[in-house]
Amino acid sequence: MQNSKSELSRLVVAIVGCGTVGGGAARLILQNQDHFRKMAGVDLVLKYLVDKNFSHARSLGLPETLFCTELDTALADPEVGVVVELVGGTGFAKTLFEKALAAGKHVVTANKALLAHHGKELFALARRQERTIGFEASCGGGIPIIRALYDGLLANEIQALYGIVNGTCNFILSQMAGKGQSYADALRDAQSAGFAEADPSLDVQGGDSAHKIGILANLAFGAAIKPEDISVRGIDTLQITDVNAGADLGYVIKLIAQAQRTASGLSVRVEPSFISRHHPLAWVSGSFNALSVYGNAVGHTLYYGRGAGAMPTASAVVSDMLSIGTGAYPLQFARLGNWLDRTVPVRATPESEIVRKYYLRFLVQDKPGMLAKMTAVLGTLDISVASIHQPEVAEPQDGDSADGMVTVIIITHPTSEQTIRQAAREICALHEVADQASLIPILDEHPEFKA
Amino acid sequence: MQNSKSELSRLVVAIVGCGTVGGGAARLILQNQDHFRKMAGVDLVLKYLVDKNFSHARSLGLPETLFCTELDTALADPEVGVVVELVGGTGFAKTLFEKALAAGKHVVTANKALLAHHGKELFALARRQERTIGFEASCGGGIPIIRALYDGLLANEIQALYGIVNGTCNFILSQMAGKGQSYADALRDAQSAGFAEADPSLDVQGGDSAHKIGILANLAFGAAIKPEDISVRGIDTLQITDVNAGADLGYVIKLIAQAQRTASGLSVRVEPSFISRHHPLAWVSGSFNALSVYGNAVGHTLYYGRGAGAMPTASAVVSDMLSIGTGAYPLQFARLGNWLDRTVPVRATPESEIVRKYYLRFLVQDKPGMLAKMTAVLGTLDISVASIHQPEVAEPQDGDSADGMVTVIIITHPTSEQTIRQAAREICALHEVADQASLIPILDEHPEFKA
Repeated sequence: MQNSKSELSRLVVAIVGCGTVGGGAARLILQNQDHFRKMAGVDLVLKYLVDKNFSHARSLGLPETLFCTELDTALADPEVGVVVELVGGTGFAKTLFEKALAAGKHVVTANKALLAHHGKELFALARRQERTIGFEASCGGGIPIIRALYDGLLANEIQALYGIVNGTCNFILSQMAGKGQSYADALRDAQSAGFAEADPSLDVQGGDSAHKIGILANLAFGAAIKPEDISVRGIDTLQITDVNAGADLGYVIKLIAQAQRTASGLSVRVEPSFISRHHPLAWVSGSFNALSVYGNAVGHTLYYGRGAGAMPTASAVVSDMLSIGTGAYPLQFARLGNWLDRTVPVRATPESEIVRKYYLRFLVQDKPGMLAKMTAVLGTLDISVASIHQPEVAEPQDGDSADGMVTVIIITHPTSEQTIRQAAREICALHEVADQASLIPILDEHPEFKA
Repeated sequence: MQNSKSELSRLVVAIVGCGTVGGGAARLILQNQDHFRKMAGVDLVLKYLVDKNFSHARSLGLPETLFCTELDTALADPEVGVVVELVGGTGFAKTLFEKALAAGKHVVTANKALLAHHGKELFALARRQERTIGFEASCGGGIPIIRALYDGLLANEIQALYGIVNGTCNFILSQMAGKGQSYADALRDAQSAGFAEADPSLDVQGGDSAHKIGILANLAFGAAIKPEDISVRGIDTLQITDVNAGADLGYVIKLIAQAQRTASGLSVRVEPSFISRHHPLAWVSGSFNALSVYGNAVGHTLYYGRGAGAMPTASAVVSDMLSIGTGAYPLQFARLGNWLDRTVPVRATPESEIVRKYYLRFLVQDKPGMLAKMTAVLGTLDISVASIHQPEVAEPQDGDSADGMVTVIIITHPTSEQTIRQAAREICALHEVADQASLIPILDEHPEFKA
């Protein structure tokens, strides 16, 4: 405790990439600088905004004196203590990390794709250089979830994470559930409202959520599976029929990113899932994000906030700078065992060991004896049926209905992913059943583990 | 970053007070010790359990070798790095703090009453001794809300906190709202379920919530008002009639502890309040706690979890030990400006400047012209009426109805606490109106401040 409050710690910042988040971080530093001095004891000095194009920076009224087109100028400046990588992607961003760390700078980033694919190597490089990588903004935007895992919940063995970590998908699903819109219509609305990109594939196919849950799993479990072993399903094939049928049964559809310890390793998955309308994640609507974390002492905790946007993301980026400035983060980075370069590679839990309830929907010819045929398949595979629902009239929706066909919805008791997929295949192979079934896992409230 | 991961930092612990939380903390240290070595790089060694009575410790199977009846033995042991105060109250606990700090030990506590009344002085003493006070467990149990304020949201100027920070009250209110129970019946159920003490006054009268919101306000705003200037109303006079009438209007009743910057200082209040059933705090039910924090960059974030109980509170207590063990917390304690000894005393916002909507309920003689008389009072005081509701039949409930009287509910547009109280007094003074009115503030979603 050698530092007294009156000695401010000075940290000079170069922001690389002056888009939405970069512009927000610059504004936040300039606006709250006095606050940082008073509250954090850190004098955060923005010296460079590095980019090729400053039209966004100019539109925000950021001072021209900060603009710098040569990255090397900022990296060569010995005053600069931290480089903020906000260029995105895994190409130039990676080179930037390597150059900045080699130049002896700390790096702060919001880049989940880069960390998901190259985190281990970049963290190891940072450690060799005796520098740190701040990455609070990479998962959950402004929600301090990374800190909850490496600090606030450190006393716990974490048992499971369940999260809504992609605002685009949550906005689309909220529209579908709330307004009965089809996926295509809801996507179009999300695009007009600025919540989805022109090419939304990284969001709607679940890739972005997979990057985030992969990073969070490292922190939570001190263990990791390969990015390619994360099981990912997106929302882009989801049908409004299933959203509505689930709602009638008391479920809300969410794109859930989850990570869980299992006997044989880690289960890390992203998939549209039904959760009870009484689960706290069920009311997370619109573009908000939230994460449920289950610890072996604390039980269920939940963190909620804006998962994207200029200022929420800037909040996380600048908080990382301040934690570097106080010296606390460098100590944590040196000491803790759950950083991306220190986690142990483990096996991905196979589908035969992923066990939960399922929702199944089939289109079936309206003939006597069909239910018996279908349940016989389930019985043979040792799947218990919790309930069967056959809505009175099969309403043609999403173009997946046909004359003389009725809808049959089956809710199962817990069974394995492997077994339920086989059951769906076998039932669809019956010639009275349409080829395509809907299969959606049902996530019950995770039991709180009591010590 | 001189410490490499392989050098474990050793921290020897003496827990004083082996009740519910002390027992839980001891169990957690013993159970997760390997986990702490691996994840935190800290070798947390429990050496003393100090108490006069070890029946609870024995019931948990804690090792007899740890039992120590002489506090001075633990304090005199130079190996002990941290003393955990879990005796409660503001008498012996304060002496224990002073002795432990004088002996050069860090202190970790869950004692909100002590910190609310003597925090400034104890933090100053810790600083003089170059030691720290960990107090994550004092507010929100296992929820890492203290860390969110001093670390995760540090980049923000905090605008407001709204919290449900007392599980006893939230359990009782959930029973009243969910089952239509009277306060007295719900309290009795809470007592049988172990969620309320035999003497529940510190909880139900709002004192415990006031301690917590007072501590949190220091961290959030770097400013504080005197504990006696916190405006406190409990749930013990709340009537089921109002809970039900609010529900009909779309509101949920919660005991809300709030702190907010205003032009003239800080408004820190605890009071039963109506919140929209769409606000995320509305679904926080039973004994759970949650806090909404509004930052000028991040907007609305929310933190949810168990606010009490042996293991959730132990989670916070042990996380504090680990943060002391890594060395991160001592740096933050030295550097930051919002610790209890460093916050600036400010003025409590007067009632004339507390402005929000209100719910008013009167019992009125069923005579022509009464509504005109009542609204005339409001008009004279410049209070705008949003809506007036007169349920068809005045149902006698809670014994507050009387023959020939009808219920009149008035929802106002925003007005000041001072003005609305005067209006309620003047209306009750009309001889056709019963003496007692119900007056409950309505908290709308706090606007997110955008930078």
